Amino acid sequence: MNITILFGGSSYEHEISIVSAITMKKVLKKSTLTYIFVSDDRAFYLVDTDKINAKLFSSGAYKKGKKLTLKKGGFFSDTLFGSKVVTSDVTLNLIHGRDGEDGKIAAMMDFYSIPYISPRLEASALSYNKLYTKFLAQNLGVKTVPYEYLSQGDERKIVMPYPVIVKPVRLGSSIGVSIVRDVSELDYALDVAFEFDAEVIVEPFIEGVKEFNQAGCYTDKWELSLIEEPQKEVFLDFEKKYMDFARDSQVLEAQIPDALKTKIQESFKTIYDPLFKGSIIRCDFFVVDNEVLLNEINPIPGSMANYLFENFEAMVYRLSGHLPKESKIKIDYQYIHSIQSAKGKA
Amino acid sequence: MNITILFGGSSYEHEISIVSAITMKKVLKKSTLTYIFVSDDRAFYLVDTDKINAKLFSSGAYKKGKKLTLKKGGFFSDTLFGSKVVTSDVTLNLIHGRDGEDGKIAAMMDFYSIPYISPRLEASALSYNKLYTKFLAQNLGVKTVPYEYLSQGDERKIVMPYPVIVKPVRLGSSIGVSIVRDVSELDYALDVAFEFDAEVIVEPFIEGVKEFNQAGCYTDKWELSLIEEPQKEVFLDFEKKYMDFARDSQVLEAQIPDALKTKIQESFKTIYDPLFKGSIIRCDFFVVDNEVLLNEINPIPGSMANYLFENFEAMVYRLSGHLPKESKIKIDYQYIHSIQSAKGKA
Repeated sequence: MNITILFGGSSYEHEISIVSAITMKKVLKKSTLTYIFVSDDRAFYLVDTDKINAKLFSSGAYKKGKKLTLKKGGFFSDTLFGSKVVTSDVTLNLIHGRDGEDGKIAAMMDFYSIPYISPRLEASALSYNKLYTKFLAQNLGVKTVPYEYLSQGDERKIVMPYPVIVKPVRLGSSIGVSIVRDVSELDYALDVAFEFDAEVIVEPFIEGVKEFNQAGCYTDKWELSLIEEPQKEVFLDFEKKYMDFARDSQVLEAQIPDALKTKIQESFKTIYDPLFKGSIIRCDFFVVDNEVLLNEINPIPGSMANYLFENFEAMVYRLSGHLPKESKIKIDYQYIHSIQSAKGKA
Repeated sequence: MNITILFGGSSYEHEISIVSAITMKKVLKKSTLTYIFVSDDRAFYLVDTDKINAKLFSSGAYKKGKKLTLKKGGFFSDTLFGSKVVTSDVTLNLIHGRDGEDGKIAAMMDFYSIPYISPRLEASALSYNKLYTKFLAQNLGVKTVPYEYLSQGDERKIVMPYPVIVKPVRLGSSIGVSIVRDVSELDYALDVAFEFDAEVIVEPFIEGVKEFNQAGCYTDKWELSLIEEPQKEVFLDFEKKYMDFARDSQVLEAQIPDALKTKIQESFKTIYDPLFKGSIIRCDFFVVDNEVLLNEINPIPGSMANYLFENFEAMVYRLSGHLPKESKIKIDYQYIHSIQSAKGKA
């Protein structure tokens, strides 16, 4: 299968997207990979699969590659005789953060009828925004960590007891996130978060909370990963997460009772279906007092959480065969015709 | 000012978008208009402003126009010597329904740094979906009409008393909407709605309910329209709405007490700010027992509700000067550099 990997983007997670993309070379071994890089100014470049490495981007050498244009049916390069499509069976959206996770890439792939693996526009808009994720979960009956919401102009006052964790509403990968141990630290944490977003949410920081990650997708059946209990320091900082995106071998399954496993799996399915069809996502759950709480939806996890699956590549192939398609809308101009014939009679 | 009007699209409201676009010729009289048509298969065509009329599209004659490509900075036409941008100060997104109102056009305009008047991606995703609109309003403390939610596989059972109104979750312009007077009619109405969407909402149908429409935007100040009490038959059917999109002269203001007017205006502002910045939207409110309930958000109303404003064109100019801009993200490759220098030392 010929798979296009779309990565980079105008995103704070641009660099970890590069790491994520390079990791795929070790994961998708049976496939022919086509790498398309989205530069920080959002130009598309074809990158030689044999030569891809991190330095290619940090040095700017990628600019010597072919520039591509996105049009109906795919990415095109200019030739002497018009333009030529870069052939591919499916595109993996591996742009973490803005552009990739906020729905822009999904919008363009749908608009131009390009088969792709990624959360669709609506799923992206809801999961990229931590406040909307709460609405979604509430509506679906999935419990979440309690929260308070502050926007930039609001009074800087919270009701919940300390310690708390302050998060910008829209970013991923711990950027702009702080733990606040008492009220004296709140102001600074909000300053940091408001650097990145005009809205923040505040959640209780639960020391030593049990966390479990579940990834998966729906092809013609449920394909759920093993459940991992991630090893955390206080919380994952950006550099730690950065390394995390390079993981390419399967991790150990968390040793948890069957009842808990089932609860986590059911919560995952409730969140996923039908909104996230077409994508491989990871949900991060907390377990508090034997209750499963959704912490975060990771709509495009680092290298799509390959390390949680036994055979990630085979699953990508199956998913490629079961992607949601937009309905075709037939335009027959019957209203314009009927108005025109009415005018003709007048 | 040179204004591009983007219209058409792969949408059930493709034809009313054409009507809406043509109406703008009578509304934006001082401007130089550039018309760009999105065909049903999503190709972009430049349309001659002097020759635009409904028949151009229903006959397929538009295909003789220049085909355009969307790239960074604008729409481009191919010339003998490369490609040439179609110049414009601002683009009005006048695509009603799918593509325009679901966030795809917004995504592309932001991705390619093209100044545009339209709800942004997130605002579109939330207002295009009637269920998410309820979440949004609830979170903002704006009351809505009560509702029940059904997805295609659910048991076809509702709790609220009849009559009710059944709406597909995602469409506009009354498409797929039915009034259901008793349980015997429910099945058929759901069949109709499920033709268009896998999810529906059911609301009480309130005979003779008072409805008021408020449009507006935020430039460097609030610019609120007069409030209209729309004349309705049972409810606006598609052909009636179709004609509605051709309105180009100011309507009469509803005669309502100041207190009610203020309530409607405040509800509008709460919904609009900050999510809808950059757009001119119309909110449709019901008044029941002296309470103002949000019925629907119309993120791209027919000809953007020009008929509710005294000087629509001047407002478009002011809004063009106050469009939200995406923050610039600087990529400095510091993480890749630090990893490389760590490796170098090893």
